[in-house]
Amino acid sequence: MAQKPSIPKGTRDFSPIEMARRNYIFDTIRESFIRFGFEAIETPAMENLSSLLGKYGDEGDKLLFKILNSGNYLSKIGDTELLPENSKQLSTLICEKGLRYDLTVPFARYVVQHRNDITFPFKRYQIQAVWRADRPQKGRYREFFQCDVDVIGSTSLLNEVELIQIVDDVFRKLNISATIKINNRKILAAIAEKIGYPEKLTDITVAMDKLDKIGLEKVHEELLSKGISEDSLEMLDVFMNLQGNSNDEKMGCLRELIGNSSIGSIGMSELDKVFSYLKDMDIKNKVELDLNLARGLSYYTGAIIEVVANDVSIGSICGGGRYDDLTGIFGLKDVSGVGVSFGADRIYDVLLQLDLFPGESMVSTQAMFVNFGEKEEEYCLPLLAKLRAAGINSEIYPENTKMKKQMTYANNKNIPFVLLAGENEIKEGKLTVKNMKSSEQSLINIDEFIDLIK
Amino acid sequence: MAQKPSIPKGTRDFSPIEMARRNYIFDTIRESFIRFGFEAIETPAMENLSSLLGKYGDEGDKLLFKILNSGNYLSKIGDTELLPENSKQLSTLICEKGLRYDLTVPFARYVVQHRNDITFPFKRYQIQAVWRADRPQKGRYREFFQCDVDVIGSTSLLNEVELIQIVDDVFRKLNISATIKINNRKILAAIAEKIGYPEKLTDITVAMDKLDKIGLEKVHEELLSKGISEDSLEMLDVFMNLQGNSNDEKMGCLRELIGNSSIGSIGMSELDKVFSYLKDMDIKNKVELDLNLARGLSYYTGAIIEVVANDVSIGSICGGGRYDDLTGIFGLKDVSGVGVSFGADRIYDVLLQLDLFPGESMVSTQAMFVNFGEKEEEYCLPLLAKLRAAGINSEIYPENTKMKKQMTYANNKNIPFVLLAGENEIKEGKLTVKNMKSSEQSLINIDEFIDLIK
Repeated sequence: MAQKPSIPKGTRDFSPIEMARRNYIFDTIRESFIRFGFEAIETPAMENLSSLLGKYGDEGDKLLFKILNSGNYLSKIGDTELLPENSKQLSTLICEKGLRYDLTVPFARYVVQHRNDITFPFKRYQIQAVWRADRPQKGRYREFFQCDVDVIGSTSLLNEVELIQIVDDVFRKLNISATIKINNRKILAAIAEKIGYPEKLTDITVAMDKLDKIGLEKVHEELLSKGISEDSLEMLDVFMNLQGNSNDEKMGCLRELIGNSSIGSIGMSELDKVFSYLKDMDIKNKVELDLNLARGLSYYTGAIIEVVANDVSIGSICGGGRYDDLTGIFGLKDVSGVGVSFGADRIYDVLLQLDLFPGESMVSTQAMFVNFGEKEEEYCLPLLAKLRAAGINSEIYPENTKMKKQMTYANNKNIPFVLLAGENEIKEGKLTVKNMKSSEQSLINIDEFIDLIK
Repeated sequence: MAQKPSIPKGTRDFSPIEMARRNYIFDTIRESFIRFGFEAIETPAMENLSSLLGKYGDEGDKLLFKILNSGNYLSKIGDTELLPENSKQLSTLICEKGLRYDLTVPFARYVVQHRNDITFPFKRYQIQAVWRADRPQKGRYREFFQCDVDVIGSTSLLNEVELIQIVDDVFRKLNISATIKINNRKILAAIAEKIGYPEKLTDITVAMDKLDKIGLEKVHEELLSKGISEDSLEMLDVFMNLQGNSNDEKMGCLRELIGNSSIGSIGMSELDKVFSYLKDMDIKNKVELDLNLARGLSYYTGAIIEVVANDVSIGSICGGGRYDDLTGIFGLKDVSGVGVSFGADRIYDVLLQLDLFPGESMVSTQAMFVNFGEKEEEYCLPLLAKLRAAGINSEIYPENTKMKKQMTYANNKNIPFVLLAGENEIKEGKLTVKNMKSSEQSLINIDEFIDLIK
């Protein structure tokens, strides 16, 4: 036989059992999105490279999958450009399209392109694959799936609250115990101001964000190397050490420490409002103000949200925040948005590790008729049609082959009930129903079986 | 403002209303697939080019979207290869991956790659996008969606029957009146044999297949030009003219005309068996033996199936057949399969043209609270939570803005009920419910509203 075929590294096939598990996740997330009034959009896998380049930094540009132009893609390339050392510049000459890298930039592009047809505030969700030419490693793929939910065109903090409710709803339904961390960019700005380095906001928050991973000492080292003074670090420690206190205590300290900063007090009143809404919302998962949370900060301007699973160390399984100028990259200014993104692949790993996939959601076919030959088929086929008409997923083994082979098939496919009709059953107008889990057998008619399943 | 962003030609964004319509189609098809015992798989968007090249003919190879290798993709290219006139050979040196062109070849690759983990017969379905660098035109896209369902590893004709049942089930649920045409490659072979040109099977059937489009005269011209004699054409006319007769009549004629051909009699007994099964199956759409149906023939070896909508001229909306050696292209011989593929984009056009999308399936959010300000929010938010807990998709307008703007939002989003709670309603513990279709208003409490919706 020829060499076994394979797929590109970092990509995956999904088998029926994996699909069932993945659909359990997607369906749960989608149900919450819809329950809260969000609507689906989809964008094409390919975007114009001009829409993607420059949106993810230099590193991101390198990780874009570029698509070779069709036809004679070299026809307009001059000899001087067609040189081995020219690969970077050449790539944008021979490729006009690329695969989407995330769902955020295509969404911004969508909003700008269709702004005259959209009713704002626009509550949209989007569940699609994204592609990155990252070095593949455990848990990191070149094709993976994001579930984004955003409200665009409304500055109301009710949106932040609804997103936290959705996060809570999703993880509650999935039985994942989670901690929902929130922070606010304006408070981080006030902290940087307070310690005397408003212009070093990014350096400071990027370092704070690493506290859990590298510890206080290393955070200090990093900040000293960025030119932050020892005195300022001492002040910063007060904020970092608030970790572990209740949200009320943290808010109390913040009021004392940064309450007189104008940006700080705006940030605090935003947080106050979110917390006060949430109090009446029956949120089951812990919501924790985490002053060290920054998430790269890149475009967040208000709320910052990140979710971790309490029982598995796998990093964040959901995250997002408020951004005031997402569509600016495509020329439409001052459209505020807020959203979060669920990482389906990590959620999959959490559910698998904690054995939380519900058995019943993995059952696809509920009943299988054993095939004993033509005469028996004639008896079974109308009964099979009846099951299907009653909404029961069912099948007949297509060939009259060895019983053992047929039972193995049912077993491998996790079919809970096998139906047998031989001479006796046919004479009595009944079926032998075998429960594949308990191995119990009973002789009943088709209506009784339908009742049993329903 | 900068130039409005756009997407690559031949690709599409899907807005919420389009997504709702598309999901109505996908959900209907998926439900039937699952009802009949099929399981989902998915394969990556990118395949190794070596898996794709040579599988779709020269024309197909040209239509593959190729993905530029990451990093310095020119590093191993010699000066002699890097020439403008070399674009075709160069493309396979600088691209190792391509986007999938259909779902059939990736499925064959999947079966071979995972053959030790698959329980045969393998009943799989796959609903995913495919990409072709075709010239875009009305109804033809560069990214489009296929819904494939196949049984692999079973030669039983029960599989053909089940596929026809699925086709009938899907179009019945979609309210599309369809004609399911079937034919058999073995019968076509017998016809070619009968008229004296067994070796010209493809030429003959390709021409017959065009009868509806170009008429008998042109079919004759085409066949004469391929070297078929006048006498043979006369014999062929008998077969082509069977169109319009009942299946029984056609089978009777075939029995007379090709009953003594060994391959013909096998084909006829296959068809007999399929028809006899179908008689007891309560098939609502017309099943028609169409001797002119060939579908390019490429790899079909037994049944050939094609479905057309009776009320819209749009070409086939579903098609497929039996192939005996699909996995041979990846080195695994003699695995028989049979399957059909639904064309989601054409089905979409049919439903749109016949106005068959059900209104209720387009409703996502069922109720919206008008936002009258903070005090009213306090009253509404627990009621909103109650609706959501009852499984009702609902939302509150996030900002206290003009009534007209809020009503326009509800209107544009097709929300059927708007809920208003001002001073009076709050005093009475009730809500004013406005039916957006009839404009009727009533004053009820939240439990009565839940009952109303359910």
